[in-house]
Amino acid sequence: MNYTLKQIPERTQKPRQSGLTMAMDKGLSIRQTEDFLDIAADHVDIVKLGWATSFVTPKLKEKLKVYKEAGIPVYFGGTLFEAFVIRGQFDDYRRVLDEFGLEYAEVSDGSIDMHQEEKCQYINTLAKQVTVLSEVGSKDEAKIIPPYKWIQLMRAELEAGAWKVIGEAREGGNVGLFRSSGEVRQGLVEEILTQIPPENIIWEAPQKAQQVWFVQLLGANVNLGNIAPHEVISVETIRLGLRGDTFSLYL
Amino acid sequence: MNYTLKQIPERTQKPRQSGLTMAMDKGLSIRQTEDFLDIAADHVDIVKLGWATSFVTPKLKEKLKVYKEAGIPVYFGGTLFEAFVIRGQFDDYRRVLDEFGLEYAEVSDGSIDMHQEEKCQYINTLAKQVTVLSEVGSKDEAKIIPPYKWIQLMRAELEAGAWKVIGEAREGGNVGLFRSSGEVRQGLVEEILTQIPPENIIWEAPQKAQQVWFVQLLGANVNLGNIAPHEVISVETIRLGLRGDTFSLYL
Amino acid sequence: MNYTLKQIPERTQKPRQSGLTMAMDKGLSIRQTEDFLDIAADHVDIVKLGWATSFVTPKLKEKLKVYKEAGIPVYFGGTLFEAFVIRGQFDDYRRVLDEFGLEYAEVSDGSIDMHQEEKCQYINTLAKQVTVLSEVGSKDEAKIIPPYKWIQLMRAELEAGAWKVIGEAREGGNVGLFRSSGEVRQGLVEEILTQIPPENIIWEAPQKAQQVWFVQLLGANVNLGNIAPHEVISVETIRLGLRGDTFSLYL
Repeated sequence: MNYTLKQIPERTQKPRQSGLTMAMDKGLSIRQTEDFLDIAADHVDIVKLGWATSFVTPKLKEKLKVYKEAGIPVYFGGTLFEAFVIRGQFDDYRRVLDEFGLEYAEVSDGSIDMHQEEKCQYINTLAKQVTVLSEVGSKDEAKIIPPYKWIQLMRAELEAGAWKVIGEAREGGNVGLFRSSGEVRQGLVEEILTQIPPENIIWEAPQKAQQVWFVQLLGANVNLGNIAPHEVISVETIRLGLRGDTFSLYL
Repeated sequence: MNYTLKQIPERTQKPRQSGLTMAMDKGLSIRQTEDFLDIAADHVDIVKLGWATSFVTPKLKEKLKVYKEAGIPVYFGGTLFEAFVIRGQFDDYRRVLDEFGLEYAEVSDGSIDMHQEEKCQYINTLAKQVTVLSEVGSKDEAKIIPPYKWIQLMRAELEAGAWKVIGEAREGGNVGLFRSSGEVRQGLVEEILTQIPPENIIWEAPQKAQQVWFVQLLGANVNLGNIAPHEVISVETIRLGLRGDTFSLYL
Repeated sequence: MNYTLKQIPERTQKPRQSGLTMAMDKGLSIRQTEDFLDIAADHVDIVKLGWATSFVTPKLKEKLKVYKEAGIPVYFGGTLFEAFVIRGQFDDYRRVLDEFGLEYAEVSDGSIDMHQEEKCQYINTLAKQVTVLSEVGSKDEAKIIPPYKWIQLMRAELEAGAWKVIGEAREGGNVGLFRSSGEVRQGLVEEILTQIPPENIIWEAPQKAQQVWFVQLLGANVNLGNIAPHEVISVETIRLGLRGDTFSLYL
């Protein structure tokens, strides 16, 4: 840090199991990726190339190299996994992961219907090839999954080999964990936490009020995801109690 | 594309008459322009320098050169045309277009009152000098133009020599084609389409839900405008059915 | 300017006492800072490193050097001042300002309770070391300060040695001068202006409608703050009557 302030909470160190910041790159150029890492490499643990943006992003291999040199693991968004699966191209997907040298992958069912057993099988298969993040929650705001079902899915997916489970929110922060207004489904989160250890969950929380809410509930070292590249510094200050919203948290 | 997926709709190729993406640059620096084109040159067909931002943008000629070298035509926003016209400086405007080597220009009446005949005369005059885009719709959210009038204006402006007509939405996506909430005026769009061929219209659609709505209505190769530079990759995935919102469109 | 338009209001010249644009940098990288200044150096008068982002921003000294070479003064957000004060580290804060070669500083009480006398003492002390900007207004949207109190605070803080007083709005533009919807507290602003000269006030106005409102009330050379780096060009066109919203202001 650039100067010394008392009563700053201790942050976990990389490679982290908790306190992770997952950022979403939805189409940065090579130089924009370098700029992002120049400011955020110390604060970001893992980067998602949002949904299927990797399909149309030019110079993809070059970009992956920039992340690799900065020591930041990258994975393709779950929607891409689903796009391969629904086309009967799961084996192609596995080859694509290898071709691009990816060491992480996401399994999700946000846009398609998939039986729990089938999803767990995908997790299990992919876990032999890469580190798997598994996402729970629908991208359809009309599709409400009750809390007991979230818990059951998360537990089953962790048992199937997922490294972390992700709570769905989309880029907008208006589905899954959140109401369409962006408000946290507080009861849902609290019920999940009675059963699943927080270090196993990454909470997608793209909006500031959502980040603040999770830091207030779980502290500086909560796992947060879907952070926009230009918000990573802000998120770090929120964690540390150095933005207005969490200013008094550790005092 | 970076890998092979089945059932992806075919996109038209450049130079396109339909399937156009028009992006809005509201003040990128030279290097930011390079970054934008590095990622989006293949996906963007034409760039608007929003409203009169070109008046205060430093290194304008250098910036235009960057676009030219990437083969992307540029035009000044219609508000600039109106600013010259209302000051009685239309001839100056024509000289400015030449001085900056522009090959496209926009004619609009979003901020001033202009008789249809006068507007068509401007289109006619400018069409001898450049390729003209003509915009229909007011920037004033209180000013509702009925559908039959939209159709009449669009038809007259195309006949006067406009290459394409643009449906107004502003940067915010909250006037013209849209209600102040951003919701599409669905009946208006559908009525326009009974009379004007879709390839002649560029729909300004800065918000994601608006882009999704038009792709669902008119398919991958709808003309979309006022796309923010950092959203061009997202728009391309929406067109291709590779974002959650249009995931099932071609399956 | 890039071409000649009649009836454009005259802008004050740097170094300005009125017509200031204060931009908020909330974590730009070195190259992003260069890009920002490449486009905006002529239009920006002073830059705030938002709240305590300077604590976690890498290469801070290098970044400050980039601003210095462009002749743009920089100051740390008021929340950082408050973070030092509440930890009993005010003397450390003064040393930090010197260590980083800062010539401006903000005094605020947006996140903590502070008696007016204490605040004025901090202003007085810091004014011997740097040029002081003093902010009035709470970051807590539930905390409404009545207009007479705003006036009393602003007057006292200017007398204590503040160069300018800042009207609070946060990055979001939804507290202090504004309702949580972003709407201006019009009566508040008008009452303040009966007592405090406008050139002494910087109005935080991050939203476009807020910028438009202040330009309509006070003209091209109103002092505006918390402008996002990529909105500085837009703000300049709003000042000059070259965006739809202020198009008719000088005609």
